Amino acid sequence: MCLPGTVETVRKEIRKEGQPRFDRRTAILGGMGAAMAVAFPAKAHAVRPAKKRVQDLTHVFTAGFPVFAFDPPARATLVTIPSAGFYAQKWTLGEHSGTHMDAPGHFVLGGRLSPEITPEELIVPIVVIDISARAASDPDTVVTPDDLLRFERRHGRIPDGALVAMNSGWAGKIDDLLEFKGGPAFPGYHFPGFGLDAAMWLAENRDVTGIGVDTLSLDPGNSLTFPVHVNFLGTDRYGLENLANLDKIPPRGATAYVGLIPWEEGSGGPCRVIANW
Amino acid sequence: MCLPGTVETVRKEIRKEGQPRFDRRTAILGGMGAAMAVAFPAKAHAVRPAKKRVQDLTHVFTAGFPVFAFDPPARATLVTIPSAGFYAQKWTLGEHSGTHMDAPGHFVLGGRLSPEITPEELIVPIVVIDISARAASDPDTVVTPDDLLRFERRHGRIPDGALVAMNSGWAGKIDDLLEFKGGPAFPGYHFPGFGLDAAMWLAENRDVTGIGVDTLSLDPGNSLTFPVHVNFLGTDRYGLENLANLDKIPPRGATAYVGLIPWEEGSGGPCRVIANW
Repeated sequence: MCLPGTVETVRKEIRKEGQPRFDRRTAILGGMGAAMAVAFPAKAHAVRPAKKRVQDLTHVFTAGFPVFAFDPPARATLVTIPSAGFYAQKWTLGEHSGTHMDAPGHFVLGGRLSPEITPEELIVPIVVIDISARAASDPDTVVTPDDLLRFERRHGRIPDGALVAMNSGWAGKIDDLLEFKGGPAFPGYHFPGFGLDAAMWLAENRDVTGIGVDTLSLDPGNSLTFPVHVNFLGTDRYGLENLANLDKIPPRGATAYVGLIPWEEGSGGPCRVIANW
Repeated sequence: MCLPGTVETVRKEIRKEGQPRFDRRTAILGGMGAAMAVAFPAKAHAVRPAKKRVQDLTHVFTAGFPVFAFDPPARATLVTIPSAGFYAQKWTLGEHSGTHMDAPGHFVLGGRLSPEITPEELIVPIVVIDISARAASDPDTVVTPDDLLRFERRHGRIPDGALVAMNSGWAGKIDDLLEFKGGPAFPGYHFPGFGLDAAMWLAENRDVTGIGVDTLSLDPGNSLTFPVHVNFLGTDRYGLENLANLDKIPPRGATAYVGLIPWEEGSGGPCRVIANW
């Protein structure tokens, strides 16, 4: 419910008493009558993450973000600082929007849902399988068992608990809907994904937590039967879709923090993924 | 847009070819005609987070989660496995729902918005200021500078880059709307928060990244002027609201991962917060 009078009370009281106390912040609410942005000093304090390097692997969650099906996310302004003293938006979104997780229950009856993914599964080693050179000339290519074996020959065994992410070079296409999907509508999409044999090799021969892709779907765009969704999620592991910046982290050695919102009864849903190494 | 025919195509093709390949998963899609959940084996593989202990600090993001103002989150089922071969929900939510961040721009014209909070600010040391004993008898109590000095005498100086979180014992009241808010409507709420002097002492004397509370608001519920929102966010730092389980982590020594979805033009928004130590 919207509490009657809330916004009016906040606006009135902030205007009456809530001005900043300190000179260095007097500009902040000074322009309340106009929807202008004031120049704002950058935060000066230092931040020290657990390890030295940090890389966001998440796309900005935009209204209109490309989705496989259903409506893209939409946003609306609820209140603004000039009108109410504070600013907030409202969102409408399908769970498979933006950089997001597919939980086992997305394709598996009785499979785990978003709140059942444990925090331990959300802090994991991440490795990157780079198929971008091949994908540049073939949008229907997939990660194969050979790609995984080649990775291991070069970088060592995929670590226990790993999130195995495909870098196909697709993240850079995010602003061109047709390029990102490789077609105007499903069926007819063309983008890379995991081959079923590779996904199941990981589930059966390596102790992985999940797989991830920089495209719209764990399965390649031209799949009609979604065998990776059905079978890999069927091993009670998760998948991540629409990852970004996988070319900016080492193939091996980073830890991924997968900040899945614990959406009630969620089939997965938007998450913030950050790599640290 | 909803792509015409998508769901129908997926359903048809999955039914035709997408059955799981392996015996141990044959139960998964077997009950397709009924909305029943099958018994599902727990994931057997081990997960090894960066450090040994992991604690979720996030409430499940529920439809109807208590909000300060506007409508609580709502969810609807888009498709189900029995009907379409896959399951997904749709959400409508205000940015200040669930465990969430207040970005500087929530109260500060020109202040930073969700995508501008850097990944480095999202992996930070967390310390917990426990005022739960006092709050049990006084819902209007606040974190004071004395609480901060007492913390430092006992646990050492608040580390650079810290997220300073108030544990008032309020997280356990989440399922009782009236208890959690301490009143049916604003104005008239009663729950603990940060006192202005304590919040500004942190901003000016310690190198903090942000503050956090286990209640609905950085300011106490009975505040009419929101001075902590105005002034602390005015120092270009963030606040977290509706944190959970702060009694289950050490007062000092854990790292917090703040998985803020980078909501476009966001005034903050839902985030997944996990502590690791």
